[in-house]
Amino acid sequence: MSKTPASRTIWIDKDDPTSVVCIDQRLLPFEYEEVSIHTASEMTTVIADMVVRGAGCIGVSAGYGMYLAALATDGMGATEADAILDVAAKELEGSRPTAVNLSWAVRRQLGEILGIESPPERIERARAVAEAIADEDVAYCAAIGRHGLAIIEEIHQRKGDTVNIMTHCNAGWLAFVEHGTATAPMYAAHAKGIPIHVYVSETRPRNQGARLTAWELNQAGVPLTVIADNAAGHLLQRGMVDMVIVGSDRTTIGGDVANKIGTYMKAVVANVNGVPFYAALPSSTLDPHLRDGVEIPIEERGAQEVTRTTGWLDGRQVEPQTAAPDVAAANYGFDVTPRRYVTGIITERGVSEANEQAILAMYPEFASD
Amino acid sequence: MSKTPASRTIWIDKDDPTSVVCIDQRLLPFEYEEVSIHTASEMTTVIADMVVRGAGCIGVSAGYGMYLAALATDGMGATEADAILDVAAKELEGSRPTAVNLSWAVRRQLGEILGIESPPERIERARAVAEAIADEDVAYCAAIGRHGLAIIEEIHQRKGDTVNIMTHCNAGWLAFVEHGTATAPMYAAHAKGIPIHVYVSETRPRNQGARLTAWELNQAGVPLTVIADNAAGHLLQRGMVDMVIVGSDRTTIGGDVANKIGTYMKAVVANVNGVPFYAALPSSTLDPHLRDGVEIPIEERGAQEVTRTTGWLDGRQVEPQTAAPDVAAANYGFDVTPRRYVTGIITERGVSEANEQAILAMYPEFASD
Repeated sequence: MSKTPASRTIWIDKDDPTSVVCIDQRLLPFEYEEVSIHTASEMTTVIADMVVRGAGCIGVSAGYGMYLAALATDGMGATEADAILDVAAKELEGSRPTAVNLSWAVRRQLGEILGIESPPERIERARAVAEAIADEDVAYCAAIGRHGLAIIEEIHQRKGDTVNIMTHCNAGWLAFVEHGTATAPMYAAHAKGIPIHVYVSETRPRNQGARLTAWELNQAGVPLTVIADNAAGHLLQRGMVDMVIVGSDRTTIGGDVANKIGTYMKAVVANVNGVPFYAALPSSTLDPHLRDGVEIPIEERGAQEVTRTTGWLDGRQVEPQTAAPDVAAANYGFDVTPRRYVTGIITERGVSEANEQAILAMYPEFASD
Repeated sequence: MSKTPASRTIWIDKDDPTSVVCIDQRLLPFEYEEVSIHTASEMTTVIADMVVRGAGCIGVSAGYGMYLAALATDGMGATEADAILDVAAKELEGSRPTAVNLSWAVRRQLGEILGIESPPERIERARAVAEAIADEDVAYCAAIGRHGLAIIEEIHQRKGDTVNIMTHCNAGWLAFVEHGTATAPMYAAHAKGIPIHVYVSETRPRNQGARLTAWELNQAGVPLTVIADNAAGHLLQRGMVDMVIVGSDRTTIGGDVANKIGTYMKAVVANVNGVPFYAALPSSTLDPHLRDGVEIPIEERGAQEVTRTTGWLDGRQVEPQTAAPDVAAANYGFDVTPRRYVTGIITERGVSEANEQAILAMYPEFASD
């Protein structure tokens, strides 16, 4: 799927396995640059500044961040090392508050590497876990593609014409390691020759839809139309959309879906117009400790992302003022779509209704008590 | 209300009464420039290019456009003049397809000036009608402010705290001649000392909310917060909005409201969250010939408004690319909010439910048959 020099979004440097390399997604698709990351603190900054972004990708990045933290414990016994690993874990978990993959990856690393006396063994384990998280992400996204494909095929058979899909933000391969979640069924359908067309919502304030998803789909030859976020309702109302597929940054065990700001409005309006709305997510995005989405912390980012807009002009990145000068702005990064507006969630194990019973039937290991 | 050198958005040049002057709204609030318009064709271009924009303002502009057309008939008898006036009328009506004020103003002019033999009489009548349309716009907006104020006061008394109002696009004084429609109740409440705070949705693709409404309210000292269009749902869901007030470019006699793209999603999501949703509009925006909003033509504008974003950088206007290069985009200018999502319409005569019976009770002259 990758059309960049790299075939993944983040990886251990082959020439220097003590550092991790990622694509700087703030510059895509206008510039391609790789960033070298040498410490867990640097990884925290890379995640917080959205050099890497997207639910899966930041989970994988956090996994690699813990590997870098383990590297810094070379020569230390377990007690001293564990203290350092705990600090790194807290930093990484705090870098983006809404995504659950971050703490999922960090907790998984801690469970494997805390208490190991031998530094080489600890470092090797951390490396193996980080690589496993990345490889699973790839495999899970591919499986999501297969399960989502069945839904698209069913619509195509019923309709006998191009399937119009709406998505929001970027839950493409750039948001993961490969394939993506929301895009995986689209790529699978396209590969199978099922005619699809995708409405890509630009996704202000950072325009990940217009910039990243549109570029991804265009590179893959999938027909697409970029729309202003405001236009989604009109298309849903006029029967121009057959299904909505989005990603998720955290989905509660009860089926409430946190995703990029603007998702909730699309889900509600899809619902009142009888258009099915799916969230595609690997199980690492499921939060078994939360039932009600209202408890999910919503990241608030800097106001300048709203009062300015990043674009490209004469070959360079610019951030012109797009709001009136000296006005206040608020920048909520995510919203929560209650389960009643979610037709289904598409995970690596299959398609499930968005309720606790159905999700636990698919993931019995998440049952508490 | 005006903080620009001009106190209205458009007017007959005092030094040269054969031309009309308007504020170039594409440059506000970063630059202030006036544009001189000498012919009906020039006025058509000014409206189509959105030098002037907003339901009321383009109606008034069309009225002045017909005055300029009448000036061009100096020395002609009625037959010859009427042919010229008819051509100008068609051009002006076609400059923006969704707004009804355009044809309302043009029809009103034609009804008064067609068939007049005397050129001076014809020109003087056209001037008087254009000025009357502008003066009525001012008076009607002021009345809308008084009627909307009562709704805000009622919420304030019930809540005992700041009233949070959400609006979309610009239905402020810049969209009319003075006062505005959606903003008129806000200005009235603010003047009366009722604490209000306004969430201003930026309104991609042209950002009239972030640019014009935010600037207007800020100049008037009304507390406001600019948000990405995507954030509206989150605020409505979390109880952060007490009411929504928007303008309208055309409202059917049945109560369906056409307004800037994105309005419909706000109305639906306000509805499911129990937040009242009002459209504020002068009766010139009511279309007595349409019952069902699905019949309203929806303007489609150039794709580059979506793939690029206009902003200000280093003191100049720039239009950087904000979508991936070489991708298709669609640009629907308006959407239609069905009456069932509209709590009420606020007109110069009062507040009415959004249905034919209630609207006709307030405007019996619109009854057909």
